[in-house]
Amino acid sequence: MCRFLAWAGAKRFLDELVMDQEQSLVHQSRNALIGKTPINADGFGLAWYSGRETPCFYKDTNPAWSDANLKQLTHHTKSHLFLAHVRASTGTATSRNNCHPFGCGKWSFMHNGQAGGHDRIRQQLDGMIPGHLYDHRLGATESEAIFLIAHGEGLDAEPIAAMERAVHRVEVLARAKGSLPHMRFAACWSDGDRLFAARYASDRFAPSLHYRPCDDGIIIASEPLDAKNGDWAEIPANTAIETRGDRLQMHVFEPNGRSLDAEVA
Amino acid sequence: MCRFLAWAGAKRFLDELVMDQEQSLVHQSRNALIGKTPINADGFGLAWYSGRETPCFYKDTNPAWSDANLKQLTHHTKSHLFLAHVRASTGTATSRNNCHPFGCGKWSFMHNGQAGGHDRIRQQLDGMIPGHLYDHRLGATESEAIFLIAHGEGLDAEPIAAMERAVHRVEVLARAKGSLPHMRFAACWSDGDRLFAARYASDRFAPSLHYRPCDDGIIIASEPLDAKNGDWAEIPANTAIETRGDRLQMHVFEPNGRSLDAEVA
Amino acid sequence: MCRFLAWAGAKRFLDELVMDQEQSLVHQSRNALIGKTPINADGFGLAWYSGRETPCFYKDTNPAWSDANLKQLTHHTKSHLFLAHVRASTGTATSRNNCHPFGCGKWSFMHNGQAGGHDRIRQQLDGMIPGHLYDHRLGATESEAIFLIAHGEGLDAEPIAAMERAVHRVEVLARAKGSLPHMRFAACWSDGDRLFAARYASDRFAPSLHYRPCDDGIIIASEPLDAKNGDWAEIPANTAIETRGDRLQMHVFEPNGRSLDAEVA
Amino acid sequence: MCRFLAWAGAKRFLDELVMDQEQSLVHQSRNALIGKTPINADGFGLAWYSGRETPCFYKDTNPAWSDANLKQLTHHTKSHLFLAHVRASTGTATSRNNCHPFGCGKWSFMHNGQAGGHDRIRQQLDGMIPGHLYDHRLGATESEAIFLIAHGEGLDAEPIAAMERAVHRVEVLARAKGSLPHMRFAACWSDGDRLFAARYASDRFAPSLHYRPCDDGIIIASEPLDAKNGDWAEIPANTAIETRGDRLQMHVFEPNGRSLDAEVA
Repeated sequence: MCRFLAWAGAKRFLDELVMDQEQSLVHQSRNALIGKTPINADGFGLAWYSGRETPCFYKDTNPAWSDANLKQLTHHTKSHLFLAHVRASTGTATSRNNCHPFGCGKWSFMHNGQAGGHDRIRQQLDGMIPGHLYDHRLGATESEAIFLIAHGEGLDAEPIAAMERAVHRVEVLARAKGSLPHMRFAACWSDGDRLFAARYASDRFAPSLHYRPCDDGIIIASEPLDAKNGDWAEIPANTAIETRGDRLQMHVFEPNGRSLDAEVA
Repeated sequence: MCRFLAWAGAKRFLDELVMDQEQSLVHQSRNALIGKTPINADGFGLAWYSGRETPCFYKDTNPAWSDANLKQLTHHTKSHLFLAHVRASTGTATSRNNCHPFGCGKWSFMHNGQAGGHDRIRQQLDGMIPGHLYDHRLGATESEAIFLIAHGEGLDAEPIAAMERAVHRVEVLARAKGSLPHMRFAACWSDGDRLFAARYASDRFAPSLHYRPCDDGIIIASEPLDAKNGDWAEIPANTAIETRGDRLQMHVFEPNGRSLDAEVA
Repeated sequence: MCRFLAWAGAKRFLDELVMDQEQSLVHQSRNALIGKTPINADGFGLAWYSGRETPCFYKDTNPAWSDANLKQLTHHTKSHLFLAHVRASTGTATSRNNCHPFGCGKWSFMHNGQAGGHDRIRQQLDGMIPGHLYDHRLGATESEAIFLIAHGEGLDAEPIAAMERAVHRVEVLARAKGSLPHMRFAACWSDGDRLFAARYASDRFAPSLHYRPCDDGIIIASEPLDAKNGDWAEIPANTAIETRGDRLQMHVFEPNGRSLDAEVA
Repeated sequence: MCRFLAWAGAKRFLDELVMDQEQSLVHQSRNALIGKTPINADGFGLAWYSGRETPCFYKDTNPAWSDANLKQLTHHTKSHLFLAHVRASTGTATSRNNCHPFGCGKWSFMHNGQAGGHDRIRQQLDGMIPGHLYDHRLGATESEAIFLIAHGEGLDAEPIAAMERAVHRVEVLARAKGSLPHMRFAACWSDGDRLFAARYASDRFAPSLHYRPCDDGIIIASEPLDAKNGDWAEIPANTAIETRGDRLQMHVFEPNGRSLDAEVA
């Protein structure tokens, strides 16, 4: 289990959300309130869009609360779209290459969840990554694999459906060779223009995911950043959201359903 | 607040105490049960005596639970006397030089506690360190300063009284220029032959300190390493213990009392 | 010996100077051409002005060439005024707190050089730092001490003269209690508006310092960033430069001379 | 290109070879004399046999010269058989998981060299690792892959022939899909009882490899540790050596020749 947040909207300093909230992301790295893992201190990461073709990544293996650079960078960096993540490893090493968000071209991606029995299916996961993207396979997490598989499924053309297909393929593998729970998936991804998020599980326990519409944008977060819970809405399971400018759309996100259809067809 | 343990006795692998107990030190780095700081993840350190003239130090800034080297080293290293510490910073940076144990010649030292208002008295503390030992002043903690001041007070000749005088001097400074609580002090120190520990506070809240006599040695720890609490004894406040071979001695440790006498004299 | 560069002028991406030159700063971290230390791999640092009240610092202990975050950050960050430094330790530990640039309020500072016999005079140096600035004393380098002493000498009001006095005071100490060479000093410092640099030594070997006026600003660097040496000018020893907008001024920088006068007075 | 050394014989402190020689391994990390990469500062590693079932690994990403723990550990650790390595990356990230030596059960392995076009063949390399060993695939180097493939080829039963087959298989892949030079290979590996080393290349440029018989053991090293070159012998290309106790044996090591035979058969 990990914790994350994302912002899309007007330009704002990263520390306003990462540091300065009542239940900021850095606070969650010590004391997350929702979910079974209160400590999320196996590394952290930021991705923000600066106007260059690719997003900027700052990731390291320290706990977020003790990283002096993180405090500096979030205080001085403004962006209209950013992702931030604190990690609680479910088994793989604490290594920068295993820290979220992951990047590939203009895309960034971060995840909270797991594919059941990841240690038994990792080699097959590696084999499912498109060959031309394998140099982006830097770490060993299923999260990064799902992201790269989604690229192969056409993330550019169909940002939500491609992710659905990737999650489906990994879940099928976990059902065949892994263990329970087969798939837990809460994630955010972006191309710098649109921000996507989805919530899903192969059982009844989809990882928490919330959003809060603001006057000048939207926050998506694993858990509310303050106790004014009335301002926060839960994203239902099996749902994806897409935001661009001040438009917010909900989509069905059913890797199992849609993909099973695809298999039937 | 930090957590620590020490062993003196027959040679044993470090991981038996640092890793493999029900409430091992690494477990305490995530979930300490006594004291107000359950997370002790601002670095860690080991000191062990190997037969060379000085002890060996392994320290780093990661949480103890995620350090792959720590697992290796404690599994392969045996010693008759070792100290192990997990840190929760009370303000100074997460830096290897601020990690305990500290070393100077044959001596090692680790501490849980604080001098009140450390940020206001740090320069004076630095000035109290004997000039010929200042190249051992590597970090910025009051713990390291107390240790080096104790050296200047004659640690070799009077291991307990010198520490008492050092604690007294720092407490006097904290009373004059710092803040409440003036002194909280639970510590272990060793010359490789004898192991010392002391527990003291300027108020009623001396940090926890326990010991457990075993057939082949003694464990000293911030909190019991298992739930068989009957085997563990609390070291009373204002008390130091000294152990060498199978001998265990209790001493009064009253930095205020004894030193006040000295001041009167 | 270390290597550094600074930019003041139009906004530009940091990687244009830190990464992309023929003899970029990262290249110098592996293979500096001037000076006796070709490898400058004991940490690195950046400071840039972003519009907030204080500059932003990114520093770490890796070699600059292998830091994945550095590549990202310099590619995405633009500033009108920035400092960048790669370190070759002259004795003190490889620690983030010993990495340049150093900061205090709106000021940033970086240095190449040394005070002779630093290990013998470090405690006195610490004592010379104004008490109200001691919480900015994070590391153990003479560089950071000179910077904080300069603050005490009035950096805000007299940016060059205050630095001169600080260098003088440290040189006097090195003459009294340290060793040869007493002072080697090439440095840059800034308040976000003006950029200062100075070159000086107590002997004939002032560390190298060059500048290159460009259409839209000025580069200051330990050594030229390309082989078009005709575009680069050497800053003479005993000289400081000050730049603001498109104005460049030269000043005498004679810590010994001026300060001796002061002592006479 | 990297630098390494290994010792097999009487117990000795690691720092005698890693630190204290004229051209010690730590000295080579700054200034290797043989080969095209004088700086080997992209991490380092040690493996030593302590009497437990597996070897002990200490690895980190700093330059070897600036790691305070390395100095401590090599000064206090004695072993009859140890491997030590300083890394110069040929492309993959500076990450602990990419540092040599690698381990699997009782075996340790370290390598200097490369498989040509590694970035293009990495996914296939990953696919060649036996499934039951894939949880030992922690990093992204071809070195680790060769080691795990050698396991699959029967390292326990045929320590030299299995390595030969692994190198052959990777070379065949590099010829088919990679680039020139197809294979450069100097390596050491051990099971704690015997120490093996081999030197080979698919072209005329096998990486340097030397050994020095001593009264109480043998040193194997990328380059001599002192200028008394008369005491050092070069291991010829296409040759493996095996040492156990005071016995030293030479073997042909021709991945291409032998394996081609095998393919014919």
